[in-house]
Amino acid sequence: MKAPIKVTITGAAGHIGYALAFRVASGEMFGPDQPVILRLLEIPQALSSLNGVGMELEDCALPLLHDIVLTDDQAIGFRETDYAILIGAKPRSKGMERKDLITENAKIFSSQGRAINDHASGDVRVLVVGNPANTNALIAAANAPDLDRTQFTAMTRLDHNRALGQLANKTNNLVADISRMTIWGNHSMTQYPDIGNCLVKGTPALELVSRDWAIDHFIPRIQRRGAEIIEARGLSSAASAADAVVDHVHNWALGTPEGDWVSMSVASDGSYGIPEGVVFSYPVICKDGSYEIVQGLDLDEFSQSRLKASEKELLEERAIIADLL
Amino acid sequence: MKAPIKVTITGAAGHIGYALAFRVASGEMFGPDQPVILRLLEIPQALSSLNGVGMELEDCALPLLHDIVLTDDQAIGFRETDYAILIGAKPRSKGMERKDLITENAKIFSSQGRAINDHASGDVRVLVVGNPANTNALIAAANAPDLDRTQFTAMTRLDHNRALGQLANKTNNLVADISRMTIWGNHSMTQYPDIGNCLVKGTPALELVSRDWAIDHFIPRIQRRGAEIIEARGLSSAASAADAVVDHVHNWALGTPEGDWVSMSVASDGSYGIPEGVVFSYPVICKDGSYEIVQGLDLDEFSQSRLKASEKELLEERAIIADLL
Repeated sequence: MKAPIKVTITGAAGHIGYALAFRVASGEMFGPDQPVILRLLEIPQALSSLNGVGMELEDCALPLLHDIVLTDDQAIGFRETDYAILIGAKPRSKGMERKDLITENAKIFSSQGRAINDHASGDVRVLVVGNPANTNALIAAANAPDLDRTQFTAMTRLDHNRALGQLANKTNNLVADISRMTIWGNHSMTQYPDIGNCLVKGTPALELVSRDWAIDHFIPRIQRRGAEIIEARGLSSAASAADAVVDHVHNWALGTPEGDWVSMSVASDGSYGIPEGVVFSYPVICKDGSYEIVQGLDLDEFSQSRLKASEKELLEERAIIADLL
Repeated sequence: MKAPIKVTITGAAGHIGYALAFRVASGEMFGPDQPVILRLLEIPQALSSLNGVGMELEDCALPLLHDIVLTDDQAIGFRETDYAILIGAKPRSKGMERKDLITENAKIFSSQGRAINDHASGDVRVLVVGNPANTNALIAAANAPDLDRTQFTAMTRLDHNRALGQLANKTNNLVADISRMTIWGNHSMTQYPDIGNCLVKGTPALELVSRDWAIDHFIPRIQRRGAEIIEARGLSSAASAADAVVDHVHNWALGTPEGDWVSMSVASDGSYGIPEGVVFSYPVICKDGSYEIVQGLDLDEFSQSRLKASEKELLEERAIIADLL
């Protein structure tokens, strides 16, 4: 039998963490023959609830779940971990300014970056889900001097999957018929969901839908989808976010399908003119546990302006937490 | 590609339904090459929340999910469905007597039994999760005259999985090393979790743990596990219940592993002296979409008394709703 993969989830008693833990433990992230050990990390005041999550995981009798560690100690939570999924974050409270939200979370993610540096596997892969995810990933990476920036990513897969769902609906196709969707930029309102390279059963999407539909309906809907869900459910997206985590890590670990790519926020290497280091969502191809940014895609003036807008926002966020980098 | 399987989930916007829908849609119930159509049924006041669940399912871009139907109309919810998972039920409110709980739910499940009879596939398989699950299954079956009683089951798989987890912990083994666990009786405090036939890596469990441990610790812990979870989480079991639904239906549809069995509450055929018709949890072997009650197990005096206690409770519940049968 394969050696178990260790997966750390922070904020594991929260809505997304709760939806995620059981799917990782049931084998959806790494496949039906790969045992896992879950290391679930929470803040002290959530430990009773986390204990309940641990009991429920035990109650599932999942054959691939070889051990569960419950803790509020980062040194234990990240010990020798192979994958760190950073979900727990400070949410925006009423009247809180965006700048305060960013600095409050900067403290959390700089501390976690250091703990990952000191305790995780040297080969650890990190996915930041807690918002502002891209800048949080930048901070965590900057505080992990022994690790490579390519080991830190942020999640735009939920936006990517949402975009697939909307285009499938609009063209009356199955999501499996669509390839080469791209989310560019920041996981925020400035993100740019781009169907310019999408193929629907091999046909360019822009031969099936109009550019006006994309600009007037598709892009704003993806950008505002989170708010739409909150309005309907009275709660923010949880199960779909957890599903996107499974997809992001699954593809990173096991590769993307031939001829297709996925969207991941990764440290820019200067591709498409984005300043080096900024954590930016790109189309990427994954293979053997690594990713490569897809090169050479054409970006028209409209697209370029959208990338610039998201870049500007990310540089502003970076300026706010510059002292932590 | 295979034709999609239609799965109806009632109470789909509740905690268990929310945890379940995404796992069915991702392929965990019927396997990675089997498309599904979800028919999600809710009460009118939960339709906005259900709409949010539908949006989140769409946002997952799950390749096996071919359609989603959201409705508060039973005729639509159960139309031509292959599997009906009945989760929605009236919970016990403060000061409510057990008798009132049973009669309130009897109304819901008699109505659903009729709707399933009239609208579902003739080959439909029904799993009742909403409590009192065994008696609700009895009522639903009694109101579906065109269907066979064997098409209606109630869930004791969560108890079964909990029992596997506890025995694995106690003997320091993996759950995959344990076979032939049995839950007998009613999904209630009178259930009898029985390790008398369990094998742990081929060794009888009762050679590894004492009878006193089983009686003083194991049995009461399984019986009270639901309350233990509520105390820790402040919420009742949801993800673990959803996991048990996946397991129950997966085994019913695709079979139990060679040499092992699972626990399902099914209409008694008189096996082990239980009156015919009562929905009672038995060890069952599943094959080709059918189940058979495991015969010929030895029951000592203690075990027999436990089965009798659960039988007595089920007969009392049946007497309360006799006018609906």
